[in-house]
Amino acid sequence: MDFTFDATTEELREKLLAFMDEHVYPAEPVFHEQLAERENPWTSVPVVEELKAEARKRGLWNFFLPGEHGAGLTNLQYAPLAEITGRSPSLAPTALNCAAPDTGNMEVLAMFGNEKQREQWLQPLLDGEIRSAFAMTEPDVASSDARNIATRIRRDGTDYVINGRKWYISGAMNPNCRIFIVMGKTDPDAEPHRQQSMILVPRDTPGVHIKRGMHVFGYTDGDHGGHAEVVFDNARVPADNLIAEEGSGFAIAQARLGPGRIHHCMRLIGMAERAIELMCRRATAREAFGKTLAQQGVIQEWIAEARVRVEQLRLLVLKTAWLMDTKGNKGAHTEIQAIKIATPTSVEWILDKAIQTHGAGGVSQDFPLAELWAAARMLRLADGPDEVHKRSLARRELKRYL
Amino acid sequence: MDFTFDATTEELREKLLAFMDEHVYPAEPVFHEQLAERENPWTSVPVVEELKAEARKRGLWNFFLPGEHGAGLTNLQYAPLAEITGRSPSLAPTALNCAAPDTGNMEVLAMFGNEKQREQWLQPLLDGEIRSAFAMTEPDVASSDARNIATRIRRDGTDYVINGRKWYISGAMNPNCRIFIVMGKTDPDAEPHRQQSMILVPRDTPGVHIKRGMHVFGYTDGDHGGHAEVVFDNARVPADNLIAEEGSGFAIAQARLGPGRIHHCMRLIGMAERAIELMCRRATAREAFGKTLAQQGVIQEWIAEARVRVEQLRLLVLKTAWLMDTKGNKGAHTEIQAIKIATPTSVEWILDKAIQTHGAGGVSQDFPLAELWAAARMLRLADGPDEVHKRSLARRELKRYL
Amino acid sequence: MDFTFDATTEELREKLLAFMDEHVYPAEPVFHEQLAERENPWTSVPVVEELKAEARKRGLWNFFLPGEHGAGLTNLQYAPLAEITGRSPSLAPTALNCAAPDTGNMEVLAMFGNEKQREQWLQPLLDGEIRSAFAMTEPDVASSDARNIATRIRRDGTDYVINGRKWYISGAMNPNCRIFIVMGKTDPDAEPHRQQSMILVPRDTPGVHIKRGMHVFGYTDGDHGGHAEVVFDNARVPADNLIAEEGSGFAIAQARLGPGRIHHCMRLIGMAERAIELMCRRATAREAFGKTLAQQGVIQEWIAEARVRVEQLRLLVLKTAWLMDTKGNKGAHTEIQAIKIATPTSVEWILDKAIQTHGAGGVSQDFPLAELWAAARMLRLADGPDEVHKRSLARRELKRYL
Amino acid sequence: MDFTFDATTEELREKLLAFMDEHVYPAEPVFHEQLAERENPWTSVPVVEELKAEARKRGLWNFFLPGEHGAGLTNLQYAPLAEITGRSPSLAPTALNCAAPDTGNMEVLAMFGNEKQREQWLQPLLDGEIRSAFAMTEPDVASSDARNIATRIRRDGTDYVINGRKWYISGAMNPNCRIFIVMGKTDPDAEPHRQQSMILVPRDTPGVHIKRGMHVFGYTDGDHGGHAEVVFDNARVPADNLIAEEGSGFAIAQARLGPGRIHHCMRLIGMAERAIELMCRRATAREAFGKTLAQQGVIQEWIAEARVRVEQLRLLVLKTAWLMDTKGNKGAHTEIQAIKIATPTSVEWILDKAIQTHGAGGVSQDFPLAELWAAARMLRLADGPDEVHKRSLARRELKRYL
Repeated sequence: MDFTFDATTEELREKLLAFMDEHVYPAEPVFHEQLAERENPWTSVPVVEELKAEARKRGLWNFFLPGEHGAGLTNLQYAPLAEITGRSPSLAPTALNCAAPDTGNMEVLAMFGNEKQREQWLQPLLDGEIRSAFAMTEPDVASSDARNIATRIRRDGTDYVINGRKWYISGAMNPNCRIFIVMGKTDPDAEPHRQQSMILVPRDTPGVHIKRGMHVFGYTDGDHGGHAEVVFDNARVPADNLIAEEGSGFAIAQARLGPGRIHHCMRLIGMAERAIELMCRRATAREAFGKTLAQQGVIQEWIAEARVRVEQLRLLVLKTAWLMDTKGNKGAHTEIQAIKIATPTSVEWILDKAIQTHGAGGVSQDFPLAELWAAARMLRLADGPDEVHKRSLARRELKRYL
Repeated sequence: MDFTFDATTEELREKLLAFMDEHVYPAEPVFHEQLAERENPWTSVPVVEELKAEARKRGLWNFFLPGEHGAGLTNLQYAPLAEITGRSPSLAPTALNCAAPDTGNMEVLAMFGNEKQREQWLQPLLDGEIRSAFAMTEPDVASSDARNIATRIRRDGTDYVINGRKWYISGAMNPNCRIFIVMGKTDPDAEPHRQQSMILVPRDTPGVHIKRGMHVFGYTDGDHGGHAEVVFDNARVPADNLIAEEGSGFAIAQARLGPGRIHHCMRLIGMAERAIELMCRRATAREAFGKTLAQQGVIQEWIAEARVRVEQLRLLVLKTAWLMDTKGNKGAHTEIQAIKIATPTSVEWILDKAIQTHGAGGVSQDFPLAELWAAARMLRLADGPDEVHKRSLARRELKRYL
Repeated sequence: MDFTFDATTEELREKLLAFMDEHVYPAEPVFHEQLAERENPWTSVPVVEELKAEARKRGLWNFFLPGEHGAGLTNLQYAPLAEITGRSPSLAPTALNCAAPDTGNMEVLAMFGNEKQREQWLQPLLDGEIRSAFAMTEPDVASSDARNIATRIRRDGTDYVINGRKWYISGAMNPNCRIFIVMGKTDPDAEPHRQQSMILVPRDTPGVHIKRGMHVFGYTDGDHGGHAEVVFDNARVPADNLIAEEGSGFAIAQARLGPGRIHHCMRLIGMAERAIELMCRRATAREAFGKTLAQQGVIQEWIAEARVRVEQLRLLVLKTAWLMDTKGNKGAHTEIQAIKIATPTSVEWILDKAIQTHGAGGVSQDFPLAELWAAARMLRLADGPDEVHKRSLARRELKRYL
Repeated sequence: MDFTFDATTEELREKLLAFMDEHVYPAEPVFHEQLAERENPWTSVPVVEELKAEARKRGLWNFFLPGEHGAGLTNLQYAPLAEITGRSPSLAPTALNCAAPDTGNMEVLAMFGNEKQREQWLQPLLDGEIRSAFAMTEPDVASSDARNIATRIRRDGTDYVINGRKWYISGAMNPNCRIFIVMGKTDPDAEPHRQQSMILVPRDTPGVHIKRGMHVFGYTDGDHGGHAEVVFDNARVPADNLIAEEGSGFAIAQARLGPGRIHHCMRLIGMAERAIELMCRRATAREAFGKTLAQQGVIQEWIAEARVRVEQLRLLVLKTAWLMDTKGNKGAHTEIQAIKIATPTSVEWILDKAIQTHGAGGVSQDFPLAELWAAARMLRLADGPDEVHKRSLARRELKRYL
């Protein structure tokens, strides 16, 4: 057992930390100004493209993707890098071409796409030229149970025709989002885990209606293309847009979600570190009732508790990454669930205390805390609510004694 | 000891419940449509004026204000009515002319204003013709300690000249907000609780700069005039705009805050009831893993816990109202702090669970839950963060043993 | 609505507070000395009998029992008196002949016993001459679901013969405990709520084996006759020992539990007040790191939170008592469950903080806190674990929307 | 970074697991029988000596002690072994001669004792022939601030004379406890961290009065020699009983406490694993309301939460052990505090849920849960209450920003 990072990781961490200090943090105020000034509230802004160019030049690119198509890092090597990007989550993941949902979509295309699909869609995504969306969640069913998905993907000659309603399709409001991976049912009569398929649907396909941007506690997340409600009304695509074969949708979803969940958790830890830093800076700078906040016992209690929680979370995320590397995603199933259960809740708690330390400023647009909070809160729901993961994890634990 | 409402309360409750069913709930979707369509994002919309007219016609008006100027209700009579308005907090309190911050400002004018001030500002407020704001919180100091307030109100001949920066001045973005009550220092050298004064500053006074609307977790609260950052740059008003006398600002603030806090708590309880109702409706309607959510043990646990908490909170709020009626606001000091500590936190918890029960819908604009949550969360900070109230309450408890 | 106690209550409160100050608190150290010196570790001690005599002389007797047999108080009148006894829970309830399980047993006999049963057992209990036990819980089944009770009460000629194993039969180790009310099945084939009956079994009946005293976190509660494991091995009693008629056991149990639960909650609130007092006294007396504990922010937070919780709990208990008086125990069903859910948990939390404030002394025999904690913790299980009550309360809430 | 144990650890884990299965678990009921039958309630019992002999024969001995005197393991190697012993904490640590407070005392003697002290006291302790105690905590001061210690160690010719009152001196009621390491002040006028010294005081020294055994939530812990109150009344020992030199007491205490705290945390994790196992076994075996407890959502939630917490705690403890090995105890200061803050609280929570799952049995002597709970709760106080560690950890975090 050894808790040091390997040389590759240390080298990349240093490079990334330098990039954060020299480019990302200074870009934050610029980013907000440009967002306020843009015309289309769903597009990205120039400073992001500049950061992408700089990151790619520095070799800080596609870290998330193992194998030939990406940077070739292990999950364990990627984890501390993803954490660092989480300190500026509106900018750094995108700058490094490591932002959801593109990352998961690229993984799907790299693993399950055929050559033509990879050429047409994977390559421009790897190059950061286009964005993509993953259309799974539906408003009318409990989508945490993927078997509930009701969207139909019906074969019609050499095409598939898609009908259904999706929402919270992240990134899909952005006109530069060009391609959707849509999950739906090709065969409602097959056995429950073989009914679903995934299919590539270009955003400009007739019958694809982008209805509106869904909110997250008042935020539209317009800088990342928002979260769209999308109606598929007889949207028709060629049959070879299907990913892998009919009935493989559930399995692909499972394969996609493991890495997605750990990436979220890695970044959440960086968000927590940012929150602790902001909380400490505020506490040492502000006075009330004759003492700095930092001298108040209650705020000390929060800071200690925050530090103790983050240290535990980080180790569990790192161990999970190591398990994924050494035993595969299935071998890390329990641990992936464990970090998905533990991380958003704890980081939400830390952000809440950082907000409280900032007074009204904490809930405002002048500090990143409220927006980070909403992101952490959302992750108690996204990719399945905590309760579903707890239920599943407990059942596995109980099975040992049956 | 007796837990029944008196006849007046019962009668008004019935009238109000009918008004809610017949007018307020049906107006909610209309309200959101009109908000989406208006041009100025800080103004109110026609449906609100219609509700106000109807409420006034029905005798549901100015319930909050005891004495000759208002409806003449006690706090104990008002409490269950305010609770009901909290079930639709964007519409009902305004419809009844019982919305903050006007309520507190009317109280100040009724209690401390001179005849001219009452005529000029109190009357149109009582008639629901104009709105007002209360400018106390400052970005640069811990405003929970009112002695930190840095805005200067300097006497200059027959005028006062005001300089300072305020933020989170609720309602002030609304052009129909005509008058500010501004808290500042007239004498920084007086003893700490006699340095502050309050003064009336019309919104259109030269030197009053409305800079921007502050956000609350992504919400602008534009339907209620938002939360403005306001700079006073040599804003000059006649000397007789001062409320009461120089040095009385701290005492007036204290007098204003007691009722303000209990009104918030009353409405929060109505918000909690709305959340429980929505949670139960969702839980009985939606299925996952072969059972309705209502049949899942964890959600039952939430519902029970929510019910148990609300019952306790309501009783403490009612008792506090009764104490204010029988022993005055000072006699209810501990209890007012107690409900301010207990209510936002518990209601925030209940809203969180209601959100979780709704999945992604819970954080969206399609249900009121996320916006209610932000309001409850804000109240853990507004009028002083919980920690300040706890500290003060504990010190009083400890004094018995010193 | 009115939050003042009536004249009777105020008068009795004053008398009781005087008795506490003059007799009960001074008796506490004597009690512990006598306990340490007695030979049989399950008997009471002389000081308790002295307190009983004094209390009866002062008219502080059988407050718990409404109607002709008791003091004739309402639940609302009794509640604040029971709270006061909870401040010294090992002495005061017994001193006033208001201690469980005798209270519940006297209620059962008063309500359901026939004249002979009342003469033989109720009278000496009302006079505080003997003690009694209630034998319901069984080690081998989840006894919170009374339908699981497995003990058999079989008719055999003019007798009933009882077979089964019970545990946590409070008071039963005490030789002065003379009579058991035993719950068991007379007809396992009847419909689920008509299978059970209750029967009187004198402790010295052949076939009644008192096996051992069960512990509660290391405490034997020997001063109150402990918590016995009892085996009934063909214990035979005359048929007219049956209470009411065959099949009425479930209904009697329900009737008995409502008052029992609220009495526990009333006393728990007194325990919480004692804990707050001890916490404040310790905090003001002890120094660490250059300040008294009372000046540490974290301890102030605990004290405030404790005060805020107690005020809420008390009001809900009082309202529940009022509902029982005005609408009957059934009309107060939800509220009884609510206080049973809320009170032990909150009081346990308060006691935990009081313990922490006392350092190692807090867990020791030198302060009452650890023992009170164990009593509060036990009440999260006794009379049904919290989870069962929450489940039931939630189902009733959900029914409104089905 | 690597999460596998090394070969030595794996080999010892296997041997230890076999010893647990073959000897320790089977000895548990025997242990309780022998405890019930012994005459002196503070002595150990034969089965413990048998386990010690067997463990030593198997090479499972003195694992805790690095260097020449002990087994030569690193902290990282010892951690998973100590965890396993925590699954049966009344037997296994003693069986392996790895029980507190002897472990800490042996460390002190190994590190700071002179040759004669090591010969006389370290050797019989290493051989498991005698027991020892560490006399630091005092009833009259907040002992978490070691500078408060009031016991005097006064030089008198060739002797030291000791006066003071200590309590919670674990193990000291046991007649086989032969030697105390006593902390006291040799020079109250020195600078605060140089006033204290440690000195060896044989238990049979005239003037050493063992007053009574202190309780922990009703438990006397008599199987481990209890927790004594001890008065030193002019107890006189030769001057060369002093450990190291005058004024070094504070530093030695710090050196002793680091390993002591991590050992407690290691064992707590084993206790948590035992609790989860018992909770799962009970949940699968018991039915209520027509389902096994394992099928109830609330209990699944507890099990998942317990698993998620334990995985995090274990990793932080292991990392701390690794830091102690690689950077020394000072380099691991923050992490030692972090595990001391996190572990007892979380394990207490897990034990509470395991107790609740067991109904009344959970608080009884029939399952180990209640006693384990008391041990975990005590560790929120022992070696300094959580609040002291949080305050200190937070101050270090805040220093980065000052």
